[in-house]
Amino acid sequence: MSSVRVVQRMGVFDSGVGGITVLQALRRKFPSIEFVYLGDTANVPYGTKSPSQIENLSRLCAQRLRDEKIDVLVVACNTASSWALPAIRQEVGPLVDVIGMVEPGVASVLDRCLTNTGPILVLATRATVRSGAYRRAFETALPQDSGGPGTRDVFEQACPLLVPMIEEGWLDHKILLQTIDEYVSTHRQQGREGIALLGCTHYPWIRTQIESRLPGWTVVDSAESVAQYLASRVAASGAKLSDQASSPEVKWIFTDPEAVPEFARKILRSV
Amino acid sequence: MSSVRVVQRMGVFDSGVGGITVLQALRRKFPSIEFVYLGDTANVPYGTKSPSQIENLSRLCAQRLRDEKIDVLVVACNTASSWALPAIRQEVGPLVDVIGMVEPGVASVLDRCLTNTGPILVLATRATVRSGAYRRAFETALPQDSGGPGTRDVFEQACPLLVPMIEEGWLDHKILLQTIDEYVSTHRQQGREGIALLGCTHYPWIRTQIESRLPGWTVVDSAESVAQYLASRVAASGAKLSDQASSPEVKWIFTDPEAVPEFARKILRSV
Repeated sequence: MSSVRVVQRMGVFDSGVGGITVLQALRRKFPSIEFVYLGDTANVPYGTKSPSQIENLSRLCAQRLRDEKIDVLVVACNTASSWALPAIRQEVGPLVDVIGMVEPGVASVLDRCLTNTGPILVLATRATVRSGAYRRAFETALPQDSGGPGTRDVFEQACPLLVPMIEEGWLDHKILLQTIDEYVSTHRQQGREGIALLGCTHYPWIRTQIESRLPGWTVVDSAESVAQYLASRVAASGAKLSDQASSPEVKWIFTDPEAVPEFARKILRSV
Repeated sequence: MSSVRVVQRMGVFDSGVGGITVLQALRRKFPSIEFVYLGDTANVPYGTKSPSQIENLSRLCAQRLRDEKIDVLVVACNTASSWALPAIRQEVGPLVDVIGMVEPGVASVLDRCLTNTGPILVLATRATVRSGAYRRAFETALPQDSGGPGTRDVFEQACPLLVPMIEEGWLDHKILLQTIDEYVSTHRQQGREGIALLGCTHYPWIRTQIESRLPGWTVVDSAESVAQYLASRVAASGAKLSDQASSPEVKWIFTDPEAVPEFARKILRSV
């Protein structure tokens, strides 16, 4: 008797509400799948915490999602993806496929490298930059710098004020645009138009604003990258997607429901 | 045998590092007292959490400071002062005098009201404004609005982006000044110069920047207000201050030492 693995239920985990951008991309790609979203709003933000604390909190969330009988767990939080993937895999066990943000984002940028020879710029929170996860992934994937024409510059830019501004709802505020400018202007002024990777799950909400400050650049959305990556991976594994007719409702879990910010409540109602 | 209470050791509690401004003001006022500072950096910020979580976390910190044998506990966190003072008092017991931020700040503003007849503007985080603690304190202290010339307007302004900018070290950045302007310009344009209360322990670090955007206004620093208030209270109670000759070193406790932000590490070394 052959056993074909069926993917029916996916978990999406973030420290807060940024992972909703990933959930939205996943639902577009997998309309028949059941989703459980866990936001650890009692402990948000992870980005200011120590690695051991990030690991401990991620373990607790992974346990909670394991009990939801998920088949796939998407860690839609760059901080947890950078520091806690091994711990999360350990908690959910070998039957749950665990995907982080870094590998899909890097793969998506590498695809664009075929047509864009400019620099690569990763925009992320301070904790993600400090983890070095993107830098290591690009170093592994790209040829070592030999000073020749085939080498490629990779820059990481911490943008710590963007999440507070997004959560404040300043999406179209001139101060947001000035702050983006503060972070990207030196890269823009290098003269070569490159590829910018949105290495934080909040940033897709200001994608057009970031694009407006990086004219000519290719902007890669890591939320879409994860959905694309997961679709390829499911297809390659031979697993079967459940084929319920209607799009199931999302199950929302927040460790502190009162701590869900106002701007996110509006989005939740429309997901 | 009469027993005169001796104040020898004070605790200062904040969710993070903002309370250091209060500690500095207290040390200037009480140079012979031993200080223990507890920053709950594992759980900062409190401002985005629910009231019950703020209360639970404050209780744990109060227990830890009680074990330090303090005589006075200054709750140098507006969020904990607004939501958790009764819980903190319960944890430390009747022998420890517990002081929050709201009452001293309000008392200090009322002193200025004798010479300034303009509006009162409280600048604070969103959680502090939401708590209504300052509004209630002013309503109790000031005569009810009768529409007559003796009434006084009290405004609360949430300034949620100031703490992230201070922690980012943007103290002299033009974007900080523009953001302050965003928060205070409508109040400034009312035409009457009033009294602005810094209702967040981070704000004394940008006091001159706030003053520059509110010309002619009286800016009241709640850190200094607490030190002044406590000095009066100790004097009135007849308690005796310990009179060690030299200024004792501060004992620092952080629930996640790695989560102390870089700008604060520099300040710690100089306190």
